[in-house]
Order: sequence, then C-alpha cells, then structure tokens
Amino acid sequence: MTDYKKDFPLLAESDIAYLDNAATEQRPACVLDAEREFYERWNANPLRGLYELGVEATEQYEHARERVARFVHAKSEREIIFTRNTTEGINLVAYSYALSRLKPGDEILVTIMEHHSNLLPWQMAARQTGATLKYLECEPDGSFTEEKIRDAVTPHTKLAALTLVSNVLGRATPAEKLIGMVHENGGVVLADAAQAAPHMPIDVTALDVDFLAFSGHKLMAPMGIGVLYGKQELLEEMPPFLTGGEMIDRVTREGAVFAELPHKFEAGTVNAGGAAALAAAIDYLESIGWKEITEREEMLTAQLLAGMKKIPGVHILGSGDEKEHCGIVSFTVDDVHPHDIASILDEAHVAVRAGHHCAQPLLEWLGISSCARASVAFYNTPEDVGRFLDQLAQVRRMMGYE
Amino acid sequence: MTDYKKDFPLLAESDIAYLDNAATEQRPACVLDAEREFYERWNANPLRGLYELGVEATEQYEHARERVARFVHAKSEREIIFTRNTTEGINLVAYSYALSRLKPGDEILVTIMEHHSNLLPWQMAARQTGATLKYLECEPDGSFTEEKIRDAVTPHTKLAALTLVSNVLGRATPAEKLIGMVHENGGVVLADAAQAAPHMPIDVTALDVDFLAFSGHKLMAPMGIGVLYGKQELLEEMPPFLTGGEMIDRVTREGAVFAELPHKFEAGTVNAGGAAALAAAIDYLESIGWKEITEREEMLTAQLLAGMKKIPGVHILGSGDEKEHCGIVSFTVDDVHPHDIASILDEAHVAVRAGHHCAQPLLEWLGISSCARASVAFYNTPEDVGRFLDQLAQVRRMMGYE
Repeated sequence: MTDYKKDFPLLAESDIAYLDNAATEQRPACVLDAEREFYERWNANPLRGLYELGVEATEQYEHARERVARFVHAKSEREIIFTRNTTEGINLVAYSYALSRLKPGDEILVTIMEHHSNLLPWQMAARQTGATLKYLECEPDGSFTEEKIRDAVTPHTKLAALTLVSNVLGRATPAEKLIGMVHENGGVVLADAAQAAPHMPIDVTALDVDFLAFSGHKLMAPMGIGVLYGKQELLEEMPPFLTGGEMIDRVTREGAVFAELPHKFEAGTVNAGGAAALAAAIDYLESIGWKEITEREEMLTAQLLAGMKKIPGVHILGSGDEKEHCGIVSFTVDDVHPHDIASILDEAHVAVRAGHHCAQPLLEWLGISSCARASVAFYNTPEDVGRFLDQLAQVRRMMGYE
Repeated sequence: MTDYKKDFPLLAESDIAYLDNAATEQRPACVLDAEREFYERWNANPLRGLYELGVEATEQYEHARERVARFVHAKSEREIIFTRNTTEGINLVAYSYALSRLKPGDEILVTIMEHHSNLLPWQMAARQTGATLKYLECEPDGSFTEEKIRDAVTPHTKLAALTLVSNVLGRATPAEKLIGMVHENGGVVLADAAQAAPHMPIDVTALDVDFLAFSGHKLMAPMGIGVLYGKQELLEEMPPFLTGGEMIDRVTREGAVFAELPHKFEAGTVNAGGAAALAAAIDYLESIGWKEITEREEMLTAQLLAGMKKIPGVHILGSGDEKEHCGIVSFTVDDVHPHDIASILDEAHVAVRAGHHCAQPLLEWLGISSCARASVAFYNTPEDVGRFLDQLAQVRRMMGYE
C-alpha cells in the first residue's frame, strides 16, 4: 500500500490520526512548493503589469484557471471564477443572480441536509425578494425518494440549491435527477461541491448544472482560494457582485461599464498564489487518480463502519454501506456528549470533529443537537482508523459507564 | 546602507528593478516561512476542531488578529475582520452599512482621487438607496483646500469614503480634518488604507475613523488576506454580509441568529494561513521600523524626482516635494504612450506600471487618459532608481524623437 503521508509534512512529522478531512484536508509539500514558487519567481499583481514579471504572474494565474476548467470539465475557462471559498461562491450567486431575478411567488428549493453556507444565503435571498424557501426532506439513511423530489419541484421553482454530498451523512444526492426536473420547469440549479470535489470526478457539462462551488482547502490547496463555476450565458447576464479594480472596462463619475467574464466577478487584487497552489493540488490529486482514491477511501470507510458496529452504544448516522459515505462517518455514543467523544479521542491523538457541523436543520430533523464525525482522505491509513476504533471503544468506560 | 533585498528571494535571485510596489510588494522569506509553518505544524480548520491541532490553528488565527489590532491601534481585536483584500472590506461596508442606513436625500462623499475599489461600491450604494454621490475635488498637486472640504461636507453627508494616500499622486489626504467635519455633521467615514498601511503608522483610535480597510499583499503578505477595521458599536449594529458556516449562533429552517463579532462577518472557512503570514509581515515591518522605512523611501523618492526633473519631456504628476509622494511618482513623457514607456523600461528589467491605475475619474480630471507610475518600497536601492532614470532618459530617443 502506497504511503502518501510522506508527501504531507504535517502528517509525516507527527503521529496524529487526522480524521477531520471533511473540515479541511492537509497540504502536500508539492502544493506548498507551488505557492512559494509563485512568490519567489513570478510575484507581481496579475492582469495589470505590462512588464515581464507582470505578464508571467498573469500567465500563472490564467493557467490555474484553465487547470480548474479541465478539472470540472467546463466548456470554457471564462466560466471559472476564483473566489475565497465555497461560501463566497454561493453568496455571489445569491446576491447577483437571486436578488436580481426572484420575486414574490417564486420558490427557492433546498434540501434539509444543506450546510449553512448553502442555506443562509437563500434565507437572505428569500427575505429580500419575497420568494418562498422550500425544503426537500431526505430519508433517515440520507436518500431521497423520487416521490418527494417530484412533489418538491414545481413550475415556481426558479432556483434549487443542493449539496452533491452531505457533510454530515456523507451521502451523495440525486443531483442529476433534480437538475433535470428543475430544468424542465425552467429553473436553475446550484450545486455545493465542497464535499464532493475531493472525492469524486466533477463534470459540470455532463451534470448540466448551472452553478457549482467548491473550496480549495478541502482539496489540499491553501485556505483563501475557491472556485465558482457558472454557465457562461448566465454569468454574462448577471450584475457584478463585488466591485472595484480590474473588473471594469471604463469608469466615470456617474457609473461604470463592466469587464467581460471572468474578470467581471473578480474585483480587486486576485489570489494568484493561491490559484497556482490549487492548480498544483489538482495535478497531485489527478496523478494519484480517482480509482486509487476511491478504493482507499472506501476501504477505510468499510473498516470504520465494521469496527464501529461492534462497539456497544455507538450509533452510525446514515447508510450502513461504505459506498454511501464519501469517507464521512458521523455518529453518536449513548450518554456521551460529542464534545467529550472528541476530547477523549484527542488524548490518543485522533482528530475528529464534534458539534452541529453547520447543518443544524438536518440535525434537528434527525432528532439530535450534535454528533461526532470521522472523515477520511486517501492519505489516511488502516492504522489511523484502528487507533480511532481502539480509543472509541474506551469512550463510555472513560466517562464512567459500563 | 542595509541590504534588505537579501530577505526577499525574488529580488535576491534576479536583477529586476522592481518599482511597482504600489500594485503589490514582494514577499520576504520570513513571511513565506510563516505561512508554510502554519500548514506544516498547525493546519486544521480554525474555530471548529476541539482536538489539539484545531485549537492550535485557532490560536494562530486569533493571534494574527491581535497582531493586526495592535498594528492599527484598535481598541479591541473584535474590531478586526479578516477579508480577502481592501476591495472586499469596502464592499462589506457598502452592502452591510450603506444599504441598510442610507436613503434618498442622504449624501455619500468621495474624493476625486479614489481608486475604483473605493468608488464603484459607493456608486452601487447610491443607485440602490437613492442617496447622492458627491465628489470632493483636489488641486493639481493633489492637495485639498479647506474651503472645498467645508463646502463638500453637509448635514446630509451620512458617509464619506476617502483614501489616506492617492495611488496615483502618492499624496496623503487631510483625513483627520475630513473625519472631524463629517462627525460634526453626524456621518461616518471609511478610510482606504491600501496605499498608506505599507508606508506610515496607522492609528485608527487617534484618527477616530469609523472603518478602515487595507490589503495584506501590499504589505509583503501573501495575496488573499486583507483587513477591515470597524468601530465595535457600528459593526455590532450592522447586518451580516456574506452568510454561511461559523458566523451563526443558531440556524433553523426559517432563519438564523448570528454570532458575535468578529465572526459575524467571517463566513466560511477563514484564511488562517494567510492571516499567520500577515502577522509575520507586520512583525518584519516593525522590526525594520517606520523611521528607517520612511527615511529610505523619501531618499529614493528624492532621487527619483531630482533625476526625472532633469530629463526633457518628462512630467511628474502631483507635488514636487518627496515628502508628499509616499514613494509613488506618476508621470508622462511627451509624445510617448505610457504603455510604451513601461515596455521600454522593461527592456532594462525595470518594472513600472502604466495605465489608468484604477483611478479613471482622477485621470480624467487631470486631463490625461493614462500615465506611468514608479513606486518604491524600503527594500529598493539607489541602483534600482538609477537604472530607472538611465532608461527613462532613453525613452523618447528609442521612440524616434530628438
């Protein structure tokens, strides 16, 4: 079995069993090197300088955009907007598209399992436009019935926003089906790919999705860089969101003529160093390949599920099938608060997340206020999962039960 | 004379005379090391993890916030919001403060020398609220007369937005005077410190400014991290701008209760690596000290001005006094397009910017459509300026004149 941890300085130099990959992944040396190389060799303000260094900085930045376009199979790199993170991408669509298009009587459809970042912007848009926010509910295992989807989508559904993978249940959503139905009714769909992009190929063209957002930091890139994909014809018609330098064609005292795509949506100095590092992260990811990534993550998830099922008092949220988890396994332990679970696991240097996972409506629907979550990446090992399981088996005893 | 270039890998390993510092500064190794150290030792999603690594990531991030608070002399670190750049900080205030407070009849006051990023958001806010956008005009040397300021500020001035230093003329604005007058009339003032923060101490408390924004990348930090300062009582009353994870207290299907400052304004995964690097940049800057920085920049500017005045056909914009330039000297050359000036200088590996510098209303007011700009940082040398002057003296000849 290939040792990928050696590529990651933090993992190579510590004994941590890092199982909070759904929150943020670790960074391999090649990604850190790529960002550093940008600053040591090509640093200038992109899109502005006419001198050699400025031209090189621009080339690095636009090369990264092309790399991302290929990664998500966009038709054109003009459909790729660099953002800070998924949250900003979704807010951009909410402010620019939703506020300018929606009106009272229109419906915004979200699923009950959305992360707050794919929910609060739509609550805001509904409040400001008078549109109605509707919820599509899932089954306890995280699946969606065709009947409920059919009931939820109406001719009033002008915009649907759904995650491709739940950050709590790890389950993939029936995005293709929902997109088809919403399109039949004349609406558009935004996909939150924050949890999907690190774990499965994304093909915006095959999916025919209208908008898609993801974060670099969950994909081994530095924090502070993210991506919004949008269909060109939609982006072209949308008003700008943030305004400032380098996104204009001409400015007078009274107003401005805005630049072409993609620059219309990238006001101010861009994060070219972060974009170059994201391109390097994608190169690294694809050099490993989806087959290897999926096999390792499913193997680790199977080990997690099998081990957890044997520990009395542990309850897994969602499906029992490792193929329905995208590396994410959320759980509760009878009589033990999730914060205590995380603290006890931390004593064995096992890092898991505990809390509401920014998905309070889902947790409320599941009848809990918080849970713990272990999430793997391809670079984790059976030893990481083994240490997690050994310590998890001690949790109730350490809290004074049994 | 101390050789600071050795601290900057890009400058140490090339022969470039980098005189586009007003667009973005170069990064010293200690800043690149600090970002890398974050990812190699403390990387986790801050504010979320209860495990040791998550706590350390949070401490790094909040330490950076405290460092910035001290740098600008804020009363509390809760007044420091991390943004991507100056542009985002200004947009945040325009969307959150201006849209919720202004109404028809109110006036927004800007100066004629604002960068587009401190102008377009106010054009948007004026359009959406019905407020009137008013311009305060400067004199040809970039100064403002007390009479014009007195005429411009009225009891209707609910918000004034001014840069502390013009990115074209390099001149500092009479911010203190304007802030006093706007406050007397019950309005608030936002200061664009993008060009000021790298070149002079900022004291938001002494200045009594209500909002202040700057970018890390102009201050030797990586791209993708910036700062918005806001007075606590104002920030507390403002609605959130971007919404998403980690900026809420509680979310239901219908709505949300938002978190306390500063997290209310920091939706989604924060750029903790960038914040740690910004703190390192501030440490480096302050280790050199304002006295040394000011002396070197004024010496280089004096050399620039003296040399340029001797070259026939070269016209300096703004003041003739090196103390009135903050290291920025914009200029034109008779009969030569600024783009050609930049290209000819580039042949001698001298990097200057040419264009409208995202300040089209100022350039129109000055009666030009574009100009060239040389801008120094403390790490530049007399040799950099000498090479610039030698090549500038050849520009008209190389274009076939004289």
